[in-house]
Amino acid sequence: MADRYEVIIIGAGPGGYVAALRASQLKKKTLLIEEDKVGGTCMNWGCIPTKHLLHLTKVFAEVGNARHLEGPRDRILCDWAKVQEERAKVVDKLVKGTEFLLQKNGVVLIKGRAEFTGPDKVSVASQGVREFESPRIVLATGSRAADLPFLKPDGVRIIASREALELPSVPKSLIVIGAGAIGLELATIYRRMGTDVLVLEILPAILPGSDREIAQRLERILIKQGVKILTRMRIEESRVEEAGVVLKGICLKEGTPFEYRAEKVLAAAGRKPNSEGLCRGLPGLAVSRQGFVEVNSKLETNVPGVYAVGDLIGGKLLAHKASHEGILAVENAFGAARDMHYNALPMAVFTDPEFASVGLTEEEAKESGLEVQVGKFPFHASGRALTLESTEGLVKILAGKDDRIIGAHILSPYASEIIPELILAVHRGLTLQDVSSAIHIHPTLSEGVMEAALKAKNSAFHILNI
Amino acid sequence: MADRYEVIIIGAGPGGYVAALRASQLKKKTLLIEEDKVGGTCMNWGCIPTKHLLHLTKVFAEVGNARHLEGPRDRILCDWAKVQEERAKVVDKLVKGTEFLLQKNGVVLIKGRAEFTGPDKVSVASQGVREFESPRIVLATGSRAADLPFLKPDGVRIIASREALELPSVPKSLIVIGAGAIGLELATIYRRMGTDVLVLEILPAILPGSDREIAQRLERILIKQGVKILTRMRIEESRVEEAGVVLKGICLKEGTPFEYRAEKVLAAAGRKPNSEGLCRGLPGLAVSRQGFVEVNSKLETNVPGVYAVGDLIGGKLLAHKASHEGILAVENAFGAARDMHYNALPMAVFTDPEFASVGLTEEEAKESGLEVQVGKFPFHASGRALTLESTEGLVKILAGKDDRIIGAHILSPYASEIIPELILAVHRGLTLQDVSSAIHIHPTLSEGVMEAALKAKNSAFHILNI
Repeated sequence: MADRYEVIIIGAGPGGYVAALRASQLKKKTLLIEEDKVGGTCMNWGCIPTKHLLHLTKVFAEVGNARHLEGPRDRILCDWAKVQEERAKVVDKLVKGTEFLLQKNGVVLIKGRAEFTGPDKVSVASQGVREFESPRIVLATGSRAADLPFLKPDGVRIIASREALELPSVPKSLIVIGAGAIGLELATIYRRMGTDVLVLEILPAILPGSDREIAQRLERILIKQGVKILTRMRIEESRVEEAGVVLKGICLKEGTPFEYRAEKVLAAAGRKPNSEGLCRGLPGLAVSRQGFVEVNSKLETNVPGVYAVGDLIGGKLLAHKASHEGILAVENAFGAARDMHYNALPMAVFTDPEFASVGLTEEEAKESGLEVQVGKFPFHASGRALTLESTEGLVKILAGKDDRIIGAHILSPYASEIIPELILAVHRGLTLQDVSSAIHIHPTLSEGVMEAALKAKNSAFHILNI
Repeated sequence: MADRYEVIIIGAGPGGYVAALRASQLKKKTLLIEEDKVGGTCMNWGCIPTKHLLHLTKVFAEVGNARHLEGPRDRILCDWAKVQEERAKVVDKLVKGTEFLLQKNGVVLIKGRAEFTGPDKVSVASQGVREFESPRIVLATGSRAADLPFLKPDGVRIIASREALELPSVPKSLIVIGAGAIGLELATIYRRMGTDVLVLEILPAILPGSDREIAQRLERILIKQGVKILTRMRIEESRVEEAGVVLKGICLKEGTPFEYRAEKVLAAAGRKPNSEGLCRGLPGLAVSRQGFVEVNSKLETNVPGVYAVGDLIGGKLLAHKASHEGILAVENAFGAARDMHYNALPMAVFTDPEFASVGLTEEEAKESGLEVQVGKFPFHASGRALTLESTEGLVKILAGKDDRIIGAHILSPYASEIIPELILAVHRGLTLQDVSSAIHIHPTLSEGVMEAALKAKNSAFHILNI
């Protein structure tokens, strides 16, 4: 006989485990099923280890760049084995911490692969097959790196981000396919370690879909940091040789063929939802052509009582999107009827400087015919940026005709920590004046946010209003 | 005959030069008088050089602390002459940039000391005495380090912050008198350079007036970094000897005498308004016993048409307070009738980690009998803090019974950049729910803000709600 729960959540990544914690806050009998590690891709092979490697390699890079340090700077090396050891420790600590939180909150955690045996029934094969039943199920099985037609990852020469974060040694050369957040962050990490890094992107610019002007600035900065970036490059063929990988294709700009070789190739061009198994067990489940599970604005699928969240449902594949969807799905499963809104969904790329963004881009606003006010503040006019030796960034704020802020884009150190003020503004419908009249601490980069809001009204103080 | 202006601003620090820029935005004929350097204490001998020295010495400290770096780390030294050269360059660049902005905005800048010759007239002695006249005058003459009765600064052995930022060589030992922001920041800089630093504070805790719990945490962290801190120490006598300075006094905790010696002593216990000259020329000007110019909520003094802003009027002596007051004073001088509000006035201390604060402290709320909700999130539960190897901090948020946020206190890396979200919340009367329902980027320290807001309602995700 099947064990009954008030809600079953499949997948313990940032969508699923937060959903489970929310269910336990609502005092519901909650089952969380995970076939691999608690924390999912984000905690084990994504956001967390990437940010940790970025931090550790940044400290190393600073030693090399700091003109005010003297002594044998070139003999200071970064101990990659130690870096990997630290990375593993931090991940392990977070996973254990999350398991502890789940346990203390009374969430039942089962390890194993869940298979649907009916629309409200799943079986898990772990130490014998067990059956579970619930009128409410939340799907949060996430995504994995997408295969590219011309490129078969072998985990050694041709790798995905998961392997790239755990390389036992630093490759001499690396080709990164795809100039999205994952590609650029890993390119930055290995460039700092001395790897010859080449990023190939099929589209005309890095970070497709982002604010064009800022993405171009970041591209120039990364190139100055020694990352080679080529856009409009279509790869058509790959060959693994003893010494590395050969990639052939066409440069779409010139229409000419190219050939590159590197010790390793990282496939970072897109991800694929983990929906196949779900579709087998729930044959009626509606999925898109790309395999994303379809949900309504309440995050319910076409199977009543079955909700889906996170990478599995597509949109922007971001951990914090998954978590907020997880919370909402659980609340809706237990009777709330709230819609998920994405107008204030932020994202960040943890390059140096960081790039963070929320709401509409200038290009999106124009395409949809919106009349917008734009305020920009370049950080070369910021005292704080000068003291941090990082003046190449920019704040850009977009507001509607009614002065409400509808988008913001920041390139600066800690941009991911500076943008929350503007996320809150977009989220709560605040205006340029609300932000510009708030007192900002001097000297901070956040003053640039105030100045950009003032500039939209031609009343900035630290740049000319022309 | 006197030159007539629509407004005269005396002092070109962050209060005065921003006031002048505001007046020029309002298309007013504006005179700005400065006897020393444009940018005032903040830009030349305060905020800016301090933050720059903190940045450069932080990079140096990281080399020493980074366990993942190998090689002759102990032979990497910080080139103090180079640091000082860089500091001077950044300050110079900002001063020139500000002069450029003033000029482009049509502000007339006169260098020299202003003396009142009537309530609407000042004379400036510079290349001959010139007379200026205006129905509106804004006083922004700032402050200077306060003398202590037992301690006569000689600029060499006994110094103030101004000299401490420009020391030609790193002292072997330094006693810092006063554990406020200036004292702790300079203590941090010299500690990182290897100086034996002792901070003496007469009050029972560092950062008097700040959130007690967080100040105590920061004190422990600074002590771990090698800064010696002693509180309740009253200095009664100083003596300059050939090898340094001897300080004698009483430890108020034990009632026992103490005696310390150091190569240099930094007096960082309080500042004094530059109001004496103004009082001579404007004999009717009301000033407090401490010499602060008295103003009403519109920032007007008791002399009609004469406004005052910044350190000169007391309150928290902060550059961003001065700038916002400067803007308001000018607007009021030209007919607005807005009150200055301080409920959302933030501050930050740029130690490592940083401490940033806005609104009421828990102690202030209690003293005034306010019933508050408190939400705290310790950064040891933050994934981002773990990846940054800085988990000792804390976010604390206070809200009233109506859930509106009335205070926030953060100890973390970049706390000064994280608090603007909560400044905006206090400024616009937003609630715990407004902040906690905004999507925060994962992984960021700002997620701690969201968690603290949730915790106030016992619904945090990444810590237990007990």
